[in-house]
Amino acid sequence: MKQQEYQLMRTLRYKGDNLPGVLGKLATAVGNAGGNIGNIRTVSLGHKHVVRDLDVFVDDEEHLNRILQAIAKLPRVSVIEVRDEVLELHQGGKIKMVSTVLVDSVAVLRKVYTPGVADVCRKIQRDPSLKYTYTSIANSIAIVTDGTRILGLGNVGPVAGMPVMEGKAALLQQLVGVSGIPILLSTTDTEETVNTIKHIAPTFGGIQLEDIASPRCFDIYARLRDDLDIPMMHDDQQGTAVVTLAAVINACKITGIDIKKATIGQIGLGAAGLVIAEMLFKFTGNPVLGTARTEGSLRRHEARGGIASNLPEIMKKADVVVGCSGVKGLIPPESVRCGQVILALTNPEPEIEPAVALKRGAALAADGTSVNNLLGFPGIWKGTLDARASRINERMLVAAALAISQQTPEHELMPHILDTKVHWAVTQAVAKAAMESGVARHTLDEDYFE
Amino acid sequence: MKQQEYQLMRTLRYKGDNLPGVLGKLATAVGNAGGNIGNIRTVSLGHKHVVRDLDVFVDDEEHLNRILQAIAKLPRVSVIEVRDEVLELHQGGKIKMVSTVLVDSVAVLRKVYTPGVADVCRKIQRDPSLKYTYTSIANSIAIVTDGTRILGLGNVGPVAGMPVMEGKAALLQQLVGVSGIPILLSTTDTEETVNTIKHIAPTFGGIQLEDIASPRCFDIYARLRDDLDIPMMHDDQQGTAVVTLAAVINACKITGIDIKKATIGQIGLGAAGLVIAEMLFKFTGNPVLGTARTEGSLRRHEARGGIASNLPEIMKKADVVVGCSGVKGLIPPESVRCGQVILALTNPEPEIEPAVALKRGAALAADGTSVNNLLGFPGIWKGTLDARASRINERMLVAAALAISQQTPEHELMPHILDTKVHWAVTQAVAKAAMESGVARHTLDEDYFE
Repeated sequence: MKQQEYQLMRTLRYKGDNLPGVLGKLATAVGNAGGNIGNIRTVSLGHKHVVRDLDVFVDDEEHLNRILQAIAKLPRVSVIEVRDEVLELHQGGKIKMVSTVLVDSVAVLRKVYTPGVADVCRKIQRDPSLKYTYTSIANSIAIVTDGTRILGLGNVGPVAGMPVMEGKAALLQQLVGVSGIPILLSTTDTEETVNTIKHIAPTFGGIQLEDIASPRCFDIYARLRDDLDIPMMHDDQQGTAVVTLAAVINACKITGIDIKKATIGQIGLGAAGLVIAEMLFKFTGNPVLGTARTEGSLRRHEARGGIASNLPEIMKKADVVVGCSGVKGLIPPESVRCGQVILALTNPEPEIEPAVALKRGAALAADGTSVNNLLGFPGIWKGTLDARASRINERMLVAAALAISQQTPEHELMPHILDTKVHWAVTQAVAKAAMESGVARHTLDEDYFE
Repeated sequence: MKQQEYQLMRTLRYKGDNLPGVLGKLATAVGNAGGNIGNIRTVSLGHKHVVRDLDVFVDDEEHLNRILQAIAKLPRVSVIEVRDEVLELHQGGKIKMVSTVLVDSVAVLRKVYTPGVADVCRKIQRDPSLKYTYTSIANSIAIVTDGTRILGLGNVGPVAGMPVMEGKAALLQQLVGVSGIPILLSTTDTEETVNTIKHIAPTFGGIQLEDIASPRCFDIYARLRDDLDIPMMHDDQQGTAVVTLAAVINACKITGIDIKKATIGQIGLGAAGLVIAEMLFKFTGNPVLGTARTEGSLRRHEARGGIASNLPEIMKKADVVVGCSGVKGLIPPESVRCGQVILALTNPEPEIEPAVALKRGAALAADGTSVNNLLGFPGIWKGTLDARASRINERMLVAAALAISQQTPEHELMPHILDTKVHWAVTQAVAKAAMESGVARHTLDEDYFE
C-alpha cells in the first residue's frame, strides 16, 4: 500500500438503511479491502435512509474497483456515485486575473482607461520609480517553468506542469497577497531561457524559477542573478534550502544536538541538495559531507565548500543526515546510528521511512511531507517586494529560515503551513535583512515591523 | 482650451456657507476661469456650512492654479483640498492575480497542491487537450507590448505603458471574464520579440499585441500568425479595423450611403489605417483610396489591394473618409464635401473637429472618442477562446464588426461601451464564425447561441 500522501482520493456517495451498525459494516469492508477512509459527511438523513459522502484513499483505479466490489456485496448499502473531488477543484484552473477597480460608469472608465490613463503613463515615463506606486508590477512575480522537473514526476513538459504553477500562484495570493503569474516556456535551451526571461522581466517585481531540471538550473540561476536588476530565486534551490535549514535547526534543538558542532551529511546533490549543503555550510561554518550519483555533482559540491563523500561514510559520521536523492529506500536501515537526525526528503517516497529509522535508533526522523517549500517562498517574496530589494541575498534567505524556526511550536519540526502569522514573520525578517544588507530600495517604517 | 476628453480631472473639496446662491457664484467663478465642472457630490450638510466635492476639468496645473485663485477671491467659500482621483484610482495598479479556490484547510491544500495536484499533471501529460479543462490557460491571453507606441503618447517604453495594459486586462475580465496577462518586453528587436513571444506562448490561450509601432508590427504579426498554434491579433491593427468597419457600416446606414458602392478614402496607413483599408476593401469589394507620409506605407497599401492616392483627391472623390494619420487638423475645412462621412479618428486631437466638418456640410462626422477598441477585443477573444479557435481569421473579425453594428441603437454611431449585451453578441458571432470557418477545435451547442 502506498503512503496516504501519494494515494488518490475519491468520494463515494452511498445510500444506506438508517440503522445502527450499517456504517460500521461499510467502514470495515472498505478497510478490509485496503482503503483508508478520510472525512464522512452526511448529505441527507431520512427516516429510513441516510445518504453520505465518504472520502476514500486508494492506490489506483484498480484498487478503487476492488473496494467498490466489496461494498457491492453488503446488504442495506448501495453506492450512488463516485466523484473525483481533486479533479473537480482543478476545473477551469485555480487562478484568474481580476480588476481591482469596478468600472461601472463611463466616468470611471475615463479615469482608469483613456483619456485619464495617459496622465499616469506620462508620470511614469518622467519618473520610472512611480511604477511602484501606479502599477501592479511591484507586487507581482513571474513563476517560470520549462516543465523539465515537475514535482517528483520528472520532465512532463510545461503545460502539464501548469496545475503546480497555478497552485503556487493561488497560495501566494492567499498567504501574502502577492500576484504570481505563471509563465510556461516552450524552450529547454539555456541560452533561450535566459534571454526570454530577460526580455519579459520589466513586467514583474521578481522572478521565481520553478521545477527546472539540474544541472541546467544552476547556470540559468547564476546568469539571471547577475544580469537582472530585479530579485530572483529558484524555488527548488533557494526555497528548499531555506525550509530545510529551518528544519535542521529545529531538529537539532529538539534532539539537543549543537548545530554549529554537528557533522552534517547531504545525500543527493541536485538543485535542492547542492544549495541545502551550501547553506548549511555557510550557516554552521562546517563543510558538509556530500554524496551524489554523478562526478559533476560532487565537483559542484566541492566548489561550494563541501566535502565529497559516500553513503556509508555519511551514515557512519554524520549527526544530521539530509536526503534529497530521488531514490526510494536508498538508506539501508542497518546503517542508521543511534541518536542520528534523519530528514529523508525525497518525494513521493523517502530514502528511508521515518518509522523504520526511529526503530533503528534515530533520535528524529521525518520525510518530505513535513518540510514544505510553501513555508518559505511566499514570505520571502512579500518581504523582498515590500523592501523593493534589488536581489535576494544569503542574509535574507537565512533570516527567512530563522523566522520559520522561531515560529515553530515547541517540540514540533515545522510550523503550520497555512498559519498566516508564520508567513508574516518571514516577510518581516526578509524585509529587515534586505534593509540591513543594503539591497533595499525602500525604507519600511517601524509600524511595518510591529 | 483642450477638448474635455484630454483634460486633467481634479476634485476640489470646498466648505461653503449653507446659503442660496453660494454654489452659483462658485460655479460661475470656475466657469469664468475656463474650468469645466463635472460631478458635484455633497460630503456633509450642516446647519451653517456645506462641504462638497467638485470635479473640475482643467488643461494643466497652471490652469488649475488660476481657478483656485479665482475661488480664493470669493466670500463664504474655501477650498479644503485638491485631489487627483485619476491617480488615486491607479494606486497599486488595477489588476491582481487571485485564487479561485479557497485553501482553508490542509485537506483542501492537499487537493489543490501536493500531493493531489500530481494526479492532474499526469492526466494532462497523457492527454494535452485536458489543459482546457484543468488549467486557466484556455481562458487567458497575454497582452504584449514593447511600449513603442502607447496611445497617442508615442514611444514611452513598456513600463510607462503598463497602466494601459492593466486597463485592458481589467476591462477584459469585467466585460467577458477572460484573464488578461500584461507582458512588457524589454526588447524592440523584431527577431527577439517574435522568439520571446513564441517561447512563452504555451502559457496562454491567445496573444494580443498592443501598441507596437509600425511598420515593425506588421512583420511581427505575420510571423507569429504563421508560426503559433494559438490565436493572435494586434489590437491596433485588427481590433481597430473591426470597430472602424462597424462605425463605417453604421455611418452609411444613418446617412443613406450604399457602402458597397461608396468610394472610401483612408488618410494615414499605419498599423490601424492599413488594416482598416484592407478590411473595408474585403468587405465592400471596392479598393480603398489611401494616402500616407511614406512611400513604404503606400506600397503596403497597394500590396493589400488599395489604391495609392493623396489628400486632395480623397477629399474630392470619397463618400466616406477615415483618418488615422496622427496629424491634428490635417483635413482642411474647405476640402469637406457636402454629404460626406468623416471619421477623424486620430487621438487625442482629430484631423478635423467634427463640429467644423458638419458646419462645412458633412452628413456625419465623428472623432476617435466615439470609435473605441474596447467594443471589439473583449468579445473577439471570448468567442475565440470559447470555440478553442486555432486562429482569428477575417471571417471572425467581420462577424465581430457586424455584431457591433447590429447592437448599435438606431441613429447612433456606436453602442454603449460598457453594455455587456454588446460584448456577448460579439462573443457569439465570433464563436459562430470560428465554427463555420473550420478553425474551431470545440463545438459549442445551441444553448451557447441563445
